[in-house]
Amino acid sequence: MPDPKSKNLTWHEGQVGRTEREQQLGQRGCSIWLTGLSGSGKSTLAVAAEKALHDRGRLTYILDGDNIRQGLNSNLGFSPQDRTENIRRIGEVGKLFTDSGVIVFSSFISPYRADRDQVRAIMADGDFIEAYVAASLETCEGRDVKGLYAKARAGEIPEFTGISAPYEEPEQPELVIDTDGQSVDESVAVLIEYLEKNGYLSA
Amino acid sequence: MPDPKSKNLTWHEGQVGRTEREQQLGQRGCSIWLTGLSGSGKSTLAVAAEKALHDRGRLTYILDGDNIRQGLNSNLGFSPQDRTENIRRIGEVGKLFTDSGVIVFSSFISPYRADRDQVRAIMADGDFIEAYVAASLETCEGRDVKGLYAKARAGEIPEFTGISAPYEEPEQPELVIDTDGQSVDESVAVLIEYLEKNGYLSA
Repeated sequence: MPDPKSKNLTWHEGQVGRTEREQQLGQRGCSIWLTGLSGSGKSTLAVAAEKALHDRGRLTYILDGDNIRQGLNSNLGFSPQDRTENIRRIGEVGKLFTDSGVIVFSSFISPYRADRDQVRAIMADGDFIEAYVAASLETCEGRDVKGLYAKARAGEIPEFTGISAPYEEPEQPELVIDTDGQSVDESVAVLIEYLEKNGYLSA
Repeated sequence: MPDPKSKNLTWHEGQVGRTEREQQLGQRGCSIWLTGLSGSGKSTLAVAAEKALHDRGRLTYILDGDNIRQGLNSNLGFSPQDRTENIRRIGEVGKLFTDSGVIVFSSFISPYRADRDQVRAIMADGDFIEAYVAASLETCEGRDVKGLYAKARAGEIPEFTGISAPYEEPEQPELVIDTDGQSVDESVAVLIEYLEKNGYLSA
């Protein structure tokens, strides 16, 4: 597995690199990038998958609006430029967590293909898992857990993805998780199966 | 231990929070902030301490110029404003790693007290460990591993900390690690002893 950091630091003997951390954790670090409409089930899936992975002794972490927008990206707004920088920074943080050996979930609408592809581009092959959490707009709007769609329809939220701003579907995501047609448990199973089959759950 | 994220997500049953991750890892997440002159031994200490902690089965990660300046902070320069933003972002990333349960080292000169205090302010009590890696300017300049002091003396690097820009010593650091007067192994021992005594190496 590529470990650029180790290369830069070969003058330190006996150092700990990504490989050592992954052996310690019994897993392979990766960034699972959950993208999809508001209400598609990204956070629900991340939380449920994290529980399932924790029960198997795996170490995970979730990056989401709660811990990013109020912290690292608190100085960003919602202009196109700031949205792009928002996703860029999250991608870079995900890359650091991946290098640390953690299985990290990034749970953000991230509607623009170019922004997601930018994140993919900074990661080594296999480190980035784009998971399209797919549900129809009708389903998402029907759920409307946070009441955001109602506000968007009322014109209270400008440029709301799916209503007044575009969502660009992934073209070749590693995973499509259809939350319209399956339960949370089924979605988790799809994700875990992917991780298992592709060697992320061993080191 | 405070876990604001858990509070926000209490509607998810059986979720994994910081406490669960720390129990899994058998340690307490924290940010060990190594500050000191160029050549004071921050990176050497971080790498050696990481090895010692790995040998004890602990999970660590190092944030340093190599993985931050080329990634997350690649869009920042060296203006006063950008230096402050550089440290702010590193602090926020350290906070995320701390929440993930990892023992994270931040190895940056971070010469300004206000910037370091800003990082302390965003962290919960006990999560931030300011470790002043102290060596005299003479020692650091004598080491000059990267040849930076020679360049700074020749005027090739403007505003070089200790030569043409100030270094503001920590006033109440959790730790002072004197690399003038002790070996790397001794410095590591001081750090590990602090972590042990203060409960960071158990969960």
